[in-house]
Amino acid sequence: MKTRVTDLLNIQYPIIQAGMVWTSGWKLASAVSNCGGLGLIGAGSMKPDLLKEHIQKCKAATDKPFGVNIPLLRKDAEDLVKASLEMGIKIFFTSAGNPKTFSSLLKENGCIVVHVVANLKYGMKAQEAGCDAVVGEGVEAGGHNGADQITTLCLIPQLVDKLNIPVIAAGGIVDGRGILAALSLGAEGVQIGTRFAATVESSCHQNFKDEIVKSGDQDTVLAFRKIGLVRMIKNDFAFRAMKAESEGWNETQLRELLATKRERIGIFEGDLIEGELEAGQGVGLINDIPTVNELLDRLLNELKIAKERLETIKPG
Amino acid sequence: MKTRVTDLLNIQYPIIQAGMVWTSGWKLASAVSNCGGLGLIGAGSMKPDLLKEHIQKCKAATDKPFGVNIPLLRKDAEDLVKASLEMGIKIFFTSAGNPKTFSSLLKENGCIVVHVVANLKYGMKAQEAGCDAVVGEGVEAGGHNGADQITTLCLIPQLVDKLNIPVIAAGGIVDGRGILAALSLGAEGVQIGTRFAATVESSCHQNFKDEIVKSGDQDTVLAFRKIGLVRMIKNDFAFRAMKAESEGWNETQLRELLATKRERIGIFEGDLIEGELEAGQGVGLINDIPTVNELLDRLLNELKIAKERLETIKPG
Repeated sequence: MKTRVTDLLNIQYPIIQAGMVWTSGWKLASAVSNCGGLGLIGAGSMKPDLLKEHIQKCKAATDKPFGVNIPLLRKDAEDLVKASLEMGIKIFFTSAGNPKTFSSLLKENGCIVVHVVANLKYGMKAQEAGCDAVVGEGVEAGGHNGADQITTLCLIPQLVDKLNIPVIAAGGIVDGRGILAALSLGAEGVQIGTRFAATVESSCHQNFKDEIVKSGDQDTVLAFRKIGLVRMIKNDFAFRAMKAESEGWNETQLRELLATKRERIGIFEGDLIEGELEAGQGVGLINDIPTVNELLDRLLNELKIAKERLETIKPG
Repeated sequence: MKTRVTDLLNIQYPIIQAGMVWTSGWKLASAVSNCGGLGLIGAGSMKPDLLKEHIQKCKAATDKPFGVNIPLLRKDAEDLVKASLEMGIKIFFTSAGNPKTFSSLLKENGCIVVHVVANLKYGMKAQEAGCDAVVGEGVEAGGHNGADQITTLCLIPQLVDKLNIPVIAAGGIVDGRGILAALSLGAEGVQIGTRFAATVESSCHQNFKDEIVKSGDQDTVLAFRKIGLVRMIKNDFAFRAMKAESEGWNETQLRELLATKRERIGIFEGDLIEGELEAGQGVGLINDIPTVNELLDRLLNELKIAKERLETIKPG
């Protein structure tokens, strides 16, 4: 398969594994890259030294391109960027912040920079900042989301119409039909998160993987609008958050409820009651925990079948 | 084009114009049907006598199939159903209620019944009730939405996997790329609302049409979670609703704020400050007010172009 995204990243398939806290370490990233996609080490839950260790191990496990995802709202984002540069990383996916902060530094170092955006305005800003591509992430995505709650279906065509750089679609893409839909909208690649979280190679807790498999179409929710919108699985903690919002709690109260380390507790330690179980709305379409290799084969096969089915519906 | 939906409804293209309050009368419905899609008269803003008049005029304006959309939460839903049957209507789209209420009556009268659903559970119920197809409506859609806020991208494949009856995709579909994406997900037809509201033939106020054209990707919002989720354009009234929700107003207070006739005031009378401007999230992709004929030609052309583009990305 060939798009500007496969050319840019030098990968075989336009399938990118999203950087996910406590989930996408070197094992997952190298497995995806070895299968012809792009693996991303999720630096959002790592200190610089741990990130370096993961990069080192990923290099040992694959000779294919891989990258890092760095959330720019991290106070030590600069340290994470520098650690990655030191280790020779050439592909940076940045999110949750101003793409301009590091784009010059990264471009001077010959890196590819892709920024994650949730609306058209930030897409334009990413392009102006010199990014090579954007990930357009719809509100279907797990974890942090844009306040506007724009869905993948509405977001992608608008980015494609207004930007010159290629658009990668993210949010709610979990199978070959979703990939074909994203390409239909004009995307030149897809970024897939939660589906890769429920694989053998991901580093999240087995309880969390099992919870993704068990969850259905109605089982994720958006919460914490006032302090940063998050999509998560409806567990005990999520219901508390929903109730708090419904009662009009203020920012301070919500921050107290959220407390700290909820992501770690849920995703990495497997506490299904107190943890924040960040997952995408597509969980209802995830029914097993395959290896990355099995998953990639399946995605490509599903894509082929979906495309053949389209052929049977003649155009107007 | 041929799918189970075109066969079922005896239409040339699997494109259905959504029933919309104060918007889809006989002029819009007959224009869509005359162009080879399916026009629906939106009974949600009509009393039985007015509905009869619209059906009469629609019959005079087209010899192609057309139908009615009846929201089952209307207290006089039965009267609307009976009025339609009296006038010889054979295609019923029902929404916002239990599909079982009228499905036996309608099937006994040889009618085609399609029910609008926003999650898998209600999709299964519609199938059990004997419906011939479902519209899977994602939270992108304008107006009333399911509480789960499931997007079109996530909803459609799950309905397709679990139901035997055909699935029509709705919510966020405004151009040929969106139609191709919906078909990629397994839908056998699409229902398009807001894009048809901004046509010459729709009966909503010119101010409302202009507002749709002006609106961008961030310009709709979901509100009134506690008393029935609605998507509308962010106008003065919408900002008041957002503030009320954020402050945790209770159901009684919210009902007072909502008051009555907001839809009529906004959509039909064109009051952009006090009205509830129900529109889908795809407004950002709507930039003009064509005739239905121009729009249908354009949709089919865009679909063709999008499909040709897909061909250039080889499957895996």
